[in-house]
Amino acid sequence: MALAPAETTTAFDFGPAVALSCRECGTRYDLGPDFACVECFGPLEVAYTWNSPGSTAVPVTRREIESGPANIWRYRSLLPVPAGVAGRRNLAPGWTKLIHAENLGRELGMRRLHVKDDSGNPTHSFKDRVVAIALEAARNFGFHTLSCSSTGNLAGAVTAAAARAGLDACVFIPSDLEEAKIVMASVYGGRLVGIQGTYDEVNRFCSELIGDPLGDRWGFVNVNLRPYYAEGSKTLAYEIAEQLGWRLPAQIVIPVASGSQLTKIDKGFRELVRLGLVEDTPYKIFGAQAAGCSPVSAAYKAGRDTVQPVRPDTIAKSLAIGNPADGPYVLDIARRTGGAVEDVTDAEVVDAIRLLARTEGVFAETAGGVTVGVLRKLLAGGLLDPAAETVVLNTGDGLKTLDAVAEQARPAAVIRPSLDAFRTAIGDNQGKG
Amino acid sequence: MALAPAETTTAFDFGPAVALSCRECGTRYDLGPDFACVECFGPLEVAYTWNSPGSTAVPVTRREIESGPANIWRYRSLLPVPAGVAGRRNLAPGWTKLIHAENLGRELGMRRLHVKDDSGNPTHSFKDRVVAIALEAARNFGFHTLSCSSTGNLAGAVTAAAARAGLDACVFIPSDLEEAKIVMASVYGGRLVGIQGTYDEVNRFCSELIGDPLGDRWGFVNVNLRPYYAEGSKTLAYEIAEQLGWRLPAQIVIPVASGSQLTKIDKGFRELVRLGLVEDTPYKIFGAQAAGCSPVSAAYKAGRDTVQPVRPDTIAKSLAIGNPADGPYVLDIARRTGGAVEDVTDAEVVDAIRLLARTEGVFAETAGGVTVGVLRKLLAGGLLDPAAETVVLNTGDGLKTLDAVAEQARPAAVIRPSLDAFRTAIGDNQGKG
Ligand SMILES: [Zn+2]
Ligand SMILES: [Zn+2]
Repeated sequence: MALAPAETTTAFDFGPAVALSCRECGTRYDLGPDFACVECFGPLEVAYTWNSPGSTAVPVTRREIESGPANIWRYRSLLPVPAGVAGRRNLAPGWTKLIHAENLGRELGMRRLHVKDDSGNPTHSFKDRVVAIALEAARNFGFHTLSCSSTGNLAGAVTAAAARAGLDACVFIPSDLEEAKIVMASVYGGRLVGIQGTYDEVNRFCSELIGDPLGDRWGFVNVNLRPYYAEGSKTLAYEIAEQLGWRLPAQIVIPVASGSQLTKIDKGFRELVRLGLVEDTPYKIFGAQAAGCSPVSAAYKAGRDTVQPVRPDTIAKSLAIGNPADGPYVLDIARRTGGAVEDVTDAEVVDAIRLLARTEGVFAETAGGVTVGVLRKLLAGGLLDPAAETVVLNTGDGLKTLDAVAEQARPAAVIRPSLDAFRTAIGDNQGKG
Repeated sequence: MALAPAETTTAFDFGPAVALSCRECGTRYDLGPDFACVECFGPLEVAYTWNSPGSTAVPVTRREIESGPANIWRYRSLLPVPAGVAGRRNLAPGWTKLIHAENLGRELGMRRLHVKDDSGNPTHSFKDRVVAIALEAARNFGFHTLSCSSTGNLAGAVTAAAARAGLDACVFIPSDLEEAKIVMASVYGGRLVGIQGTYDEVNRFCSELIGDPLGDRWGFVNVNLRPYYAEGSKTLAYEIAEQLGWRLPAQIVIPVASGSQLTKIDKGFRELVRLGLVEDTPYKIFGAQAAGCSPVSAAYKAGRDTVQPVRPDTIAKSLAIGNPADGPYVLDIARRTGGAVEDVTDAEVVDAIRLLARTEGVFAETAGGVTVGVLRKLLAGGLLDPAAETVVLNTGDGLKTLDAVAEQARPAAVIRPSLDAFRTAIGDNQGKG
């Protein structure tokens, strides 16, 4: 079952990771570039020494984490990476700001609102987290090329990480993406290939490529390296809890593209509880989608357990995955924790981007407009408690989706360099401000 | 001489700052919104308890700094800000990455090269540092509006900081700036005013506005708050030294716009030596300009002490200040430390942006292309020692100056989602990669 021959396995260094394990049936596999259970086709997850059956090991203490570097490697004992990962050539993402959003909270009538702002990552999206973990797996497996299917942010994160690591990169995106994402993914070198089709078609193309000799020794971060890659999203949960003073938030609003991020944040919270790093307090997880690509929200509202694929049509292109792999898990987590899944229109997304910018000085990508817009809608609908401690995620950067707000965000005036011209422009005729 | 009436002075809280002091003649003034010496028209600087005549105070230790927050407020004892500044509503900039640039160093034949990457700041330029200090001054003086003349980055930093702080903002830019900078400066609210003219004309307009009732109780961060504002650049020096393990680099390459940043980094290094936080080792400071706006470089090469203003024409718009206020100080520092001032063409800027991106995964603004380009040129000219520990600054983000590289950074191919199409695109006719 293990693709890696036994004689090379000994050279692998995945730190505390010991196996892959099927999320559905629990079958265990040796660590390798595998992503689906051959027994039941369920997704594979990383298993660690400290969560293996019978283990009583305590991998890490608050104090050890706090003395670690100001990036995701402070949590290396909880991730499938070697102990010396912080000294390797990677982008060292994470430890982004958790902003106490007092102004936004006041506007929304909320008492304790925080924004986790992942635009502070090296390529300005949360994707740097997941790629950093996938990169270590690619190195372990001896892959020479880092690849992915991407809605844009991931392509930039992969080509930048490959540049730093000295690997080749070849990444695939829908050809109609935002200009900023295309330029960014190209500038780091490697090959960027535009595909005439939706993200889901790009994804299917990549699955074909993995089975072809052309894709030999390629690490597709979100396909054959997906079990490792996905673990990177847990660091959002770890950071939020640590930044709150080792506490879980009562409510959290997370964007849903494939659904992997939401699923792994829930996993991260549960790990922290299990390891005794935080108290076991209840939390509700809310999923956020754009109305133009809301298959999970639709299933949630219809009370279904399965997700009906859609063809995306929204300005929130980084969330435009019409056939989300982890959709059923998102439904399960939202229902189990007492959360919900909601969606907002593109107009609400733009409004929310501007609201967050003018209250907190945070310029979010459309995905951040989706979460803030959903937060507002959930409050209005009484589904979210305005008095409970709440975290809303901004996973990307407004500079990458300028067009969304470009019409509204214009100069108040364009004038000659004279006081008279300024007076006229601001409608001041008395010569006084 | 102090503009602030005595009865309000007692309410000021500038932490360790005790006075303004003329850089030229040493005349001291009460802390106020003043920027020029009435005796000699020299620029005013902030004086502290710990650098005032006769003081033997040691304001801070390495250990205290290291236990501070992961932003510029870890250096609050060396800045004109209240002790509780970290708990106030501001963007908490700084503590950006110092990247050990092994790949770029290898390409350039350098042994120990680091990139200080200030694109990691909240609005993705080093301007967040200086604005954060100016904001505290504006609060002290009771100003209701935060303003500036800007080549783009500063406008975004000011409007974002004002949004978080709950102040009004009105900022002035040349109307021909990059789209990304215009949208970014507008999205945070406040008023963005485009001026038909160069930055130097915008700057003169702001000086007029300060003297007019229209500008009453406005804090122009880089004019009447300039002494405070400028101190923010010292934090780059502090961070670089701390991140190197409390050591000064032997060589540093800094972009020159007004020249203030270079001047203050030199000041920051000297303060660290004086305070016993680092050893007194020699360092050389190199200034970097774009050929299309190189008045300081021209003066340096001509052996002059004064700077002849120019009309800028370069893609490095954030450095396009034709009449740099601190130009003479830059010349003095470059000569005193054994450095130099050099300039590179726009084509060299673009090459350097791409070089940095493909080696280190850092996508720099044109200003970062200027410093890396000048680094390369200085090495070729034998003016910079390839074996000595060197830091090069990237002060901004490539997403804000996309046009500079948009022609070169394109997809390798745009294809249908099929393996055959991919094979054709990459010139593979054997069905093997
Ligand atoms: Zn299974
Ligand atoms: Zn003077």
